[in-house]
Amino acid sequence: MEMVSRRWGSGARVDNVDTGKKKLLKAAITCFVGKGIQATTIEDIANAANVTRRTVYRYYNGKSELIAAVIDLERRQLFKQLHRVCEPFEHDFARMLEECMACAAEILSVSAGGADLLSGGNTVEALPHILSEDSHRDWEELFYTPYQRYRHNHPDVHSLTHIIELTGRLVLSFRYVPGDPNAIRHAVRAFMSLTPSSPPHSG
Amino acid sequence: MEMVSRRWGSGARVDNVDTGKKKLLKAAITCFVGKGIQATTIEDIANAANVTRRTVYRYYNGKSELIAAVIDLERRQLFKQLHRVCEPFEHDFARMLEECMACAAEILSVSAGGADLLSGGNTVEALPHILSEDSHRDWEELFYTPYQRYRHNHPDVHSLTHIIELTGRLVLSFRYVPGDPNAIRHAVRAFMSLTPSSPPHSG
Repeated sequence: MEMVSRRWGSGARVDNVDTGKKKLLKAAITCFVGKGIQATTIEDIANAANVTRRTVYRYYNGKSELIAAVIDLERRQLFKQLHRVCEPFEHDFARMLEECMACAAEILSVSAGGADLLSGGNTVEALPHILSEDSHRDWEELFYTPYQRYRHNHPDVHSLTHIIELTGRLVLSFRYVPGDPNAIRHAVRAFMSLTPSSPPHSG
Repeated sequence: MEMVSRRWGSGARVDNVDTGKKKLLKAAITCFVGKGIQATTIEDIANAANVTRRTVYRYYNGKSELIAAVIDLERRQLFKQLHRVCEPFEHDFARMLEECMACAAEILSVSAGGADLLSGGNTVEALPHILSEDSHRDWEELFYTPYQRYRHNHPDVHSLTHIIELTGRLVLSFRYVPGDPNAIRHAVRAFMSLTPSSPPHSG
């Protein structure tokens, strides 16, 4: 504890933390892809980043926190891309959903044979971290206004929360079952062409 | 080769093959669940079934064929259940889809911690075998008549093939992301409450 306060004194602190975290995340990704999340130890990550184990623990409470940080980074990159793809369809929510799914298929479909952070044995280790509350917030931010506009013209549309539930599930599925973007557009549209039967139970 | 023809003579052949295969599949499932598909060797399966490796190879060309056979068995059990669940909704295709998804969520959602044929590291090994052409045929058999009836009253509904594409993907997703059956009903219905925007490109 003494050492920490000596090393992280005064104004340099925030900058150092950011740089240090970035360096460790890069090292963690390299290890996770290379030897798999399960086999990777904190020591491996420390070696890859050329720091001590103690330094790793100064930034992250353990491997689980590192996995979460790596997934978080990837999630933010995906949504940055989705925002870009969605922009032209702000006045056509149904089409926007289609394009989101096609974009996700393109980005997330694991190409055969290629090593990837979430492919192979990593799937299982990473899954609990992908299903975070954060994703739901990201979807809501992306869809909220276009959905409200859509609802204005389609008053029978169901709640956004339920739409997001299926959307998130489909997007995630590309990790495990690659999809062709155009086939996905057709599939999404086909599902929308159905009309829900009257609700079987209340609520 | 000499030995084979001596052992598998005359009319007893078919019966023996069936019994032998059943025994081997049971042994394979035990091994796959217990130590994982990747770590299981043909020798393990032979030991579990109390036969020689040579006998295993007499029935199956290798581990890949055994995995396929095990998955095939599971797929057939799932569809048997789906047929049962769907029967009351033969005149309401939209509702039938909902109930299929709820049923699949119930059956396939891997309960936390429980060992399962497709959970854990097995996911990756088993995936290529799950995505077989057979599944598409099974869905088509289940949906064809109800879909035709539905189409009669809803001429704008898109093709069954595209609907099956999304259905299969969602069902499979329960393996990796467990779902609550009732939440899934709501999510499916919400997606159907959307109206597809006019097709952006021909075809």
